[in-house]
Amino acid sequence: MKEIRRLGVFDSGLGGLTVLNEICKYNRGLEISYFGDTARVPYGSRSDETILAYARQDVRFLQSRNVDAIVVACGTVSAIALNSLKSELDFPIFGVIESAANAAIAATKTRSIGIIGTIATIRSGAYMRTIKAKDGDARVYGVACPLLVPLIENGHAPDDEIVELACKRYLSEFKDSGVDTVIMGCTHYPFYKQTLKRLAPEITFIDIGTALAKDLKRLLNLAPSGEGKVEYFVSDSDTGFQAIANGFLDSVRADFINSVNIERY
Amino acid sequence: MKEIRRLGVFDSGLGGLTVLNEICKYNRGLEISYFGDTARVPYGSRSDETILAYARQDVRFLQSRNVDAIVVACGTVSAIALNSLKSELDFPIFGVIESAANAAIAATKTRSIGIIGTIATIRSGAYMRTIKAKDGDARVYGVACPLLVPLIENGHAPDDEIVELACKRYLSEFKDSGVDTVIMGCTHYPFYKQTLKRLAPEITFIDIGTALAKDLKRLLNLAPSGEGKVEYFVSDSDTGFQAIANGFLDSVRADFINSVNIERY
Repeated sequence: MKEIRRLGVFDSGLGGLTVLNEICKYNRGLEISYFGDTARVPYGSRSDETILAYARQDVRFLQSRNVDAIVVACGTVSAIALNSLKSELDFPIFGVIESAANAAIAATKTRSIGIIGTIATIRSGAYMRTIKAKDGDARVYGVACPLLVPLIENGHAPDDEIVELACKRYLSEFKDSGVDTVIMGCTHYPFYKQTLKRLAPEITFIDIGTALAKDLKRLLNLAPSGEGKVEYFVSDSDTGFQAIANGFLDSVRADFINSVNIERY
Repeated sequence: MKEIRRLGVFDSGLGGLTVLNEICKYNRGLEISYFGDTARVPYGSRSDETILAYARQDVRFLQSRNVDAIVVACGTVSAIALNSLKSELDFPIFGVIESAANAAIAATKTRSIGIIGTIATIRSGAYMRTIKAKDGDARVYGVACPLLVPLIENGHAPDDEIVELACKRYLSEFKDSGVDTVIMGCTHYPFYKQTLKRLAPEITFIDIGTALAKDLKRLLNLAPSGEGKVEYFVSDSDTGFQAIANGFLDSVRADFINSVNIERY
């Protein structure tokens, strides 16, 4: 298996930083190019065709940074476009679903698993299919949460009353389902993990970034070199990306953010 | 002045329909091409450069439909990009700000006027400058309301508790300002006019679509022919545009929605 020195990571916006943070925590010394499509966020309320078209451009941009493999750090793209991207590319590309499904199956005692995600992710049924293929008797319940990405991208804090109201409403849909484990199926959602935990302390919430980051050594022949570094690219400028990123990242920092015209790729 | 038979109208998404509806109510018989950039909505939390780049593509698309004049039915584009677009085009193009400023000045008794709009619109100060140029003694207060467009585009009803909480918080920023008139500075906001009115019955809310529609005959040499018709274009598909549109439009209907790859323009 080819040695992976340079990894590409992308998301619709800020959410993929939760995956990047975990990758850097569990796999030190990699060279990483991160792309956030802030000029076209959110992806999760768009059609499948548009999500695939955007994802292809994101991948082509990261290829231009000479990465050896790509992590799709976006629940929506992982659910909608990963199979198409895999068939089109001749190098490794991973999404967040498989590792999260394994982590959820390992965690649940009731064999009832919930998924919270964007409209597109829930519509796709991708998490459900992946879990059912591994445990045919598992019960899987999906709830679309279209407000969470706009709330996060607009800087609403986890203890904001509007955030609590939205989270409470989404979680109430699992009532009477027996769900004891919920996959946060969008990479933005760990921003609100403490809100979700407070509202439903009996539930185990699976962070798809952590699940993937722990899996990455098994999936790829990683060849970290020296100190490693991350370069950041976004498709829009001046939208507070750096400030929010540095408020969240703890295992790396975003010192400089480059702009990309993603429509050219 | 050239006769205007075919009018182009565009917005980032659904919001411009509130303007289209009013234009059709007050100016029957026009041929109109409507474009909603649903693949890249929302505009209002993006940078000025990105908003201008998107607006140029929207205009080029409408030019390809052979329109004689364009109405920018988007508060954000009107605030950020209208002057640039005007200088680049050799045919009439109008935004929503001028007519709304006139309507607010006519309505206010306290000469204290509030603006609610997207982050980009409030940051631009465009409404404030326009009002101050007409009445130097007017006091103008802007409040950015970044959640309202995502709430509307995701189908949250005006009586939804989350909508009420968001509107209440935004309106509370006018406390002690003496504001008696508030411009709904984004074309999406009339979807929530009844919520805003219920929360602040003492305030006159200005609908920028109505203000512009009433002004259009004065601004343009309109030449309506026969029954008129509207053709609809969106940059994304399958996102419920038609259902929401027909639930809202009353002076026209959206019978068929065409898809456009806006990045090609």
